[in-house]
Amino acid sequence: MSVYVFGHKNPDSDTVCSAIALADLKTKLGVNCTPVAQGELPPETVFILKKFGVAAPAVKTSYAGEKVFLVDTSDLSQLPDDIKQAEVLGIVDHHKLGDLTTSSPLECWIWPVGCTSTVIASMYRFHGVEIPKNIAGIMLGAILSDTVIFKSPTCTPADKEAAERLAKIAGVSDLSALGMEMFKVKSAVEGTPARELVLRDYKDFNMNGTKVGIGQLEVVDLSILDAVKGDLARDIAALKAEKGNHSVFLLLTDIMKEGSEMLIASDDESIVEKAFNIKPSAGKVWLPGVMSRKKDVVPKFEKTFA
Amino acid sequence: MSVYVFGHKNPDSDTVCSAIALADLKTKLGVNCTPVAQGELPPETVFILKKFGVAAPAVKTSYAGEKVFLVDTSDLSQLPDDIKQAEVLGIVDHHKLGDLTTSSPLECWIWPVGCTSTVIASMYRFHGVEIPKNIAGIMLGAILSDTVIFKSPTCTPADKEAAERLAKIAGVSDLSALGMEMFKVKSAVEGTPARELVLRDYKDFNMNGTKVGIGQLEVVDLSILDAVKGDLARDIAALKAEKGNHSVFLLLTDIMKEGSEMLIASDDESIVEKAFNIKPSAGKVWLPGVMSRKKDVVPKFEKTFA
Repeated sequence: MSVYVFGHKNPDSDTVCSAIALADLKTKLGVNCTPVAQGELPPETVFILKKFGVAAPAVKTSYAGEKVFLVDTSDLSQLPDDIKQAEVLGIVDHHKLGDLTTSSPLECWIWPVGCTSTVIASMYRFHGVEIPKNIAGIMLGAILSDTVIFKSPTCTPADKEAAERLAKIAGVSDLSALGMEMFKVKSAVEGTPARELVLRDYKDFNMNGTKVGIGQLEVVDLSILDAVKGDLARDIAALKAEKGNHSVFLLLTDIMKEGSEMLIASDDESIVEKAFNIKPSAGKVWLPGVMSRKKDVVPKFEKTFA
Repeated sequence: MSVYVFGHKNPDSDTVCSAIALADLKTKLGVNCTPVAQGELPPETVFILKKFGVAAPAVKTSYAGEKVFLVDTSDLSQLPDDIKQAEVLGIVDHHKLGDLTTSSPLECWIWPVGCTSTVIASMYRFHGVEIPKNIAGIMLGAILSDTVIFKSPTCTPADKEAAERLAKIAGVSDLSALGMEMFKVKSAVEGTPARELVLRDYKDFNMNGTKVGIGQLEVVDLSILDAVKGDLARDIAALKAEKGNHSVFLLLTDIMKEGSEMLIASDDESIVEKAFNIKPSAGKVWLPGVMSRKKDVVPKFEKTFA
């Protein structure tokens, strides 16, 4: 029986590429593993996998009775609904410690770095296993994506070091060029329904009993979104109602200007001012320097809701 | 400001020795750390520290506003009452994943091995830091204690390998002799009040909303406990009432016969038969092969209470 390796709902490049890499490493260490994803892959991830010639993992949403390794999350809200009926053998992650618990000892590698693939690169080294060229390529893609080409405040020296090592193995000489190519794919919004854009990188959080959803769209230039911004604002209001959330926020991150416009649908808009000390107007606010949901946004809201 | 490193309530040798070792490693890696303990050290731990010339850590029970690394647990019930007001920088452990959550990314090394010190030995190797002779000695003591001289079902090849490596550094040639010396200290019960024996290695668990306490006494021969068994049975009944628990169990583990007598104080004694398929009588039952609370007992009760 194969062990499934997967990450969070609304998979992103790190979740997908790290699942593939961890499945490769674990299989080589004697635990037969299959990478899967909880949902359809976003365009950026499809681009990375294609670029390095790696097959896309199948979509699988139910895991009762299965053995699993998790990557890129330990939050129940981001895991399958039946995760409690699965046996979690381990977690590789780079986020805060979530509310998943287990009834048996497990293997966790959770480090405060910019990307799960950075942790997995260290695991390959720890175990003395060579990283295959194509796997190194997609891990590099994951790091460039999660660290916004090393610009995110979540980026650490370990991420840069891992990216350089992986680039050598993958035969990539210009990291910035690869990163910009990826972010141009990610920035493409034409013809995509608003809901798909909102959910492209969306996570629900339970903040001290309050349901808060935060989505993020990263673009190379915010003006790309001018034509769809009204639709996005309407859609997060609708999504908030459907989910019965207290709030849904959407970060429109300009990776060149290094800041985010936040679109707000909330029972209490003042929560944003409390968290960031900047007053929103007309359901939105520009937050200079805010690049990372995990580092710049989630901890501030968690404190405000505490 | 120093970062505190500590383990669970009712500290045992692994919790104390691992806190000292992790503080040493982290300090050498540039994070100034101080090992502490949540309570008085048990006789076995005092013996190990004395044997290898390592100072006992201070007792500290409050951590609001402090930065901390945790060892040997991620369960809120085994952590200080004000742990939510501390910043948890990391966890090194070998147990199931508990209910601690954090609001920031952290560093977790949690592996399914027999002892936290085994994980820390790998961390020293990963970082290329030499283990000092006295620290190697107490880490070896922790492994011999937690794995019951390699007899516990929780013992893995990684624990044996680490113990051998540490023994070489510490200059210990006969591991079994050191282990028996330690367990003779641990077995000494004369003149010790029943409550102190019950709490010597006691943990409370929240099993699906039900409060269950499980203590364990490991002795080289069960007959050592004949004279105090009645007192122990009365004391766990009293402890159960004081705590308002559903159950308090005390495992009297005979490390040579490789099994445990379980003393039972419970609202529903049939839970023991459901978990182990052996019918208790007069508030106790012999469980052949049961050596490890973590591996042989907790998962069975968790299933029964699920």
